[in-house]
Amino acid sequence: MTSAEKISALRQKMTENQIDAFIVYSADPHMSEYLPKEWQERSWLSGFTGSAGFVVVTQNNAGLWTDGRYFVQAPLELKDSGIALMKDGQEGTPNYIDWIISEIPKHGTVAVNALATSNTNWEMLQEKLSAKDIKLVDHPLLKEIWTERNPGAKKNPVFVHPVERAGKSVAQKLSDIRQKMEDLNASVHIISSLDDVAWTLNLRGSDVQSNPVFLGYIILSKNETKLFVDLEKLDVDARKQMDESLVKMMPYEDFFAELNHIKNERILISPNSNQSIFEFLKENNTFIKAAVPGNLMKAVKNETELEGFRTVMQRDGVAMVKFLYWLTHQAGKEPMTEYSIGEKLYGFRKEGKNFVGESFGSIVGYIENGAIMHYSAPKEGSKSVTNESTILVDSGGQYLEGTTDITRTLALGSVSDEFRRNCTLALKGMIQLSMVKFPKGTRGVQLDAFARLALWNEGKDYNHGTGHGVGSFMNVHEGPQNIRKDMNFQELIPGMVISNEPGFYLENHYGIRHENLIAVKEAEQTEFGTFYEFETLTICPFDRNVIETSLLTEPERKWLNAYHQWCEEKLSADLEGEVKEWFSDLVKPI
Amino acid sequence: MTSAEKISALRQKMTENQIDAFIVYSADPHMSEYLPKEWQERSWLSGFTGSAGFVVVTQNNAGLWTDGRYFVQAPLELKDSGIALMKDGQEGTPNYIDWIISEIPKHGTVAVNALATSNTNWEMLQEKLSAKDIKLVDHPLLKEIWTERNPGAKKNPVFVHPVERAGKSVAQKLSDIRQKMEDLNASVHIISSLDDVAWTLNLRGSDVQSNPVFLGYIILSKNETKLFVDLEKLDVDARKQMDESLVKMMPYEDFFAELNHIKNERILISPNSNQSIFEFLKENNTFIKAAVPGNLMKAVKNETELEGFRTVMQRDGVAMVKFLYWLTHQAGKEPMTEYSIGEKLYGFRKEGKNFVGESFGSIVGYIENGAIMHYSAPKEGSKSVTNESTILVDSGGQYLEGTTDITRTLALGSVSDEFRRNCTLALKGMIQLSMVKFPKGTRGVQLDAFARLALWNEGKDYNHGTGHGVGSFMNVHEGPQNIRKDMNFQELIPGMVISNEPGFYLENHYGIRHENLIAVKEAEQTEFGTFYEFETLTICPFDRNVIETSLLTEPERKWLNAYHQWCEEKLSADLEGEVKEWFSDLVKPI
Repeated sequence: MTSAEKISALRQKMTENQIDAFIVYSADPHMSEYLPKEWQERSWLSGFTGSAGFVVVTQNNAGLWTDGRYFVQAPLELKDSGIALMKDGQEGTPNYIDWIISEIPKHGTVAVNALATSNTNWEMLQEKLSAKDIKLVDHPLLKEIWTERNPGAKKNPVFVHPVERAGKSVAQKLSDIRQKMEDLNASVHIISSLDDVAWTLNLRGSDVQSNPVFLGYIILSKNETKLFVDLEKLDVDARKQMDESLVKMMPYEDFFAELNHIKNERILISPNSNQSIFEFLKENNTFIKAAVPGNLMKAVKNETELEGFRTVMQRDGVAMVKFLYWLTHQAGKEPMTEYSIGEKLYGFRKEGKNFVGESFGSIVGYIENGAIMHYSAPKEGSKSVTNESTILVDSGGQYLEGTTDITRTLALGSVSDEFRRNCTLALKGMIQLSMVKFPKGTRGVQLDAFARLALWNEGKDYNHGTGHGVGSFMNVHEGPQNIRKDMNFQELIPGMVISNEPGFYLENHYGIRHENLIAVKEAEQTEFGTFYEFETLTICPFDRNVIETSLLTEPERKWLNAYHQWCEEKLSADLEGEVKEWFSDLVKPI
Repeated sequence: MTSAEKISALRQKMTENQIDAFIVYSADPHMSEYLPKEWQERSWLSGFTGSAGFVVVTQNNAGLWTDGRYFVQAPLELKDSGIALMKDGQEGTPNYIDWIISEIPKHGTVAVNALATSNTNWEMLQEKLSAKDIKLVDHPLLKEIWTERNPGAKKNPVFVHPVERAGKSVAQKLSDIRQKMEDLNASVHIISSLDDVAWTLNLRGSDVQSNPVFLGYIILSKNETKLFVDLEKLDVDARKQMDESLVKMMPYEDFFAELNHIKNERILISPNSNQSIFEFLKENNTFIKAAVPGNLMKAVKNETELEGFRTVMQRDGVAMVKFLYWLTHQAGKEPMTEYSIGEKLYGFRKEGKNFVGESFGSIVGYIENGAIMHYSAPKEGSKSVTNESTILVDSGGQYLEGTTDITRTLALGSVSDEFRRNCTLALKGMIQLSMVKFPKGTRGVQLDAFARLALWNEGKDYNHGTGHGVGSFMNVHEGPQNIRKDMNFQELIPGMVISNEPGFYLENHYGIRHENLIAVKEAEQTEFGTFYEFETLTICPFDRNVIETSLLTEPERKWLNAYHQWCEEKLSADLEGEVKEWFSDLVKPI
């Protein structure tokens, strides 16, 4: 079926069910960032494969709303679908709710699959629609059209993430969470976010591409812990760990039936949980809507986890250096494409001990494709790469001890002064953020501008956040902390791991990004308070061919030289021959 | 009556009225920052004269909660009052509501004067107290004790702030506000904040120390505008302007009676208005709680107002330079005190055209008194000033065309290397913030760290905001924008005037602050968006004796030299003789 055919089938179902508008969010019942295959409803329907965006279909029109990262990619993928691109955040683009109100008849009906939207979003939607006398209903309309969701899906094993790597036992985590439940006067706590489920029980899986998680829910009461999961997936050790931790295992499918037994409880639940859970519980219980307490505990890595990061960074750095040597030396000599380069990099990483898989699909953008922010080179027909111009490579690995995420921008051929200048401005930002010291209580939004100032000074900027949280052998994007322009009340706390990735993008020309992972750590205590700083975790040199040294201040140059020297200390023992020789040039002071 | 005697009288009244705890906020019915004399209940009761703080009295205990700015000053003023200092924001200090709950009997009663607290605060208080079965009641208890509130108060005239200086007519302002009322679907709008009342009607007064405002309320309906004001205060032109603008003038005392006539309206009102208004209206009306629309309009200065700022800065700069010459040359030669220095400075300002008065009580802090952040030197017994060490002078003027606020830190004698270093770190922060360019949409919290980084790098910081909004011949502190660590969603908009005042304070030793006023202005439009920058408004050199030049980066040094050159261009024509000679040395490049 083409997208146009799918939309047409959907419209027929809408007519049958007296639905005037249907919203297909990009979501699963666990509000995951990356979706299990069977929940990729929006991309199945529209053909648009970006990480963010949703489709609204009415009888006469259909639109896809997505953000600036996809303004180049989306029109290509939406071609012939009959779905119009709605550029979110641009002047003149209607808000999708206003658009629905203007498109459908008075007293109309809007449908959403409540399993695939959060309580927060549902309530916002309901309030705005009901103000205009429009009804909001729960309907899994696509179920009737997309019948073969994940044929022959195999049972991905769920296995133990041992306390030697987690740094904290399941018993301790459950006890810490129950303490928070008590503080909030909650009798029951429901966890539906997959990374929180996996973190809480020191388990890992592979139900979601690149994320070591598995489909599951947890229901905690004061004395009982129930894990809802496909029981066949758990290996022997995982079952044993659950038994020892007094966790009762129940079938994933029984979760909603179990909710029917919960009555007269004070339920601690994140408003970012799916609306279906709220529908099941709302009649007989009181909600305490708050962030999952384990979410912040997960974000603040313990010393064992940080040591895990430091260990895998060395392996990842060795793979990266071998890859960079291969790429810069073979480009133009052997045939390669953006896609094959990603595969090659995967191959280098795979040589590393305890490598599990990629932490996200590699972004390899040659020349102008570097400007497509979350570009994913297609297997067939991706751009051929030679020894011209520049390439942006953003990639990462999942290892049993930790997760990596790194971006380097490389010259494969000659580079214009303008490119080098912009590349250096973004690098200055990365270095400035790496060097900053700040008092306890500081939030990411207070530091974001340090990464942007060099660009701002020239009327330039980048259209994405500067940093996101990174999990420990866990999702490469996690909260609650970040470093962005947006207002996020979460303070930075020692142990938090965050990316530091300023960039610069010139549409249709080139893209630049430099990314290291950094960890918040205590720097000193003075009579003026406690001060924090960042420890850089990522170990991999930058390409000096894209740096205009004269634009660096003396402290920036010193930082870069010290960083490169540290890279040498950490990596050179694991390199040999030509690679090692090339590497020792790469890390020489500039 | 001593404070102890007042507290004792209050406790008797509390017993008579069956009140277990009485909260005396520092507030008037208009939620003004500076209080009219008759509303200085907290300082009348406690003796503590700081700008922030409140007192809670129970039968057995009494406490004053105030913040870090007053931890030095408060204990001195509270001596013998029987009131304990509660250091807000310090570990171990109880929240005052928790404290009340722990101090008073079960099912007890707490009283507040609803005229002297905002709706926001009242509702917060009510929610927390009612959760513990404690009653909150409105009672003006102090009225019965403090009988002679403002004996013989004279009628301060209310006069016209002409459109030639305001840049916008009353008719236009009322029309703009009514447009916002329509957008919010409001039928009535009540303005109770004094600066908003004065701004809206292009009137000025002097009911509050240093603030050119007058006691008044405005009630706006779609077709009517009513100003509640002491009618005798309005001069002929003011009355004429009100008549021409179709504003009905009614006695101030009739405001609450008028509220009784408002029924079935949708009332746009700031939740920062006093709770009494809400009590009068709540039975029969719907509230639309939102910021007063005129507040943001007021903050965004028009070109006429900005030109006014530029004009008065020149006059203020001349006064400041004459003052600085006098101070640095006479200190140690003629007897002077912190208080007399403030008077002397007032004298220099008074020579300027259209000078109306100080925009706040000058802060003159010699040596260790500089560390007392909102220090106010007493008329009798303030510190004698000679030619030792350093002095901090923070002052400002109200002129018919605009308002100034400036701080300079000066060497009167020898200065330690450590002092010079810290002074330079704070100056680097001021310069960095002055130089920053940033995209449209940026908030103050994103820029605050630029002013702090040089200090942070050495584990130092200052315990106050970096910048506050400044009015146009209006309050020296105004919202909604600021530059602080705190989360404030208000974006910076061209025309906003803000202070830029990093500092450094070493308790019992010295205080440092450098303050210029800056205005947001458009810098450029690029393909990456619209970018803003700051225009520095304040014209007055910095003392080179407190600057360690080697700590300045090249861009910082260049900024400072350019600033001093600009000061020379703007001021030297109005200086003569020895002052001019000294001045031309002061502004030489460093």
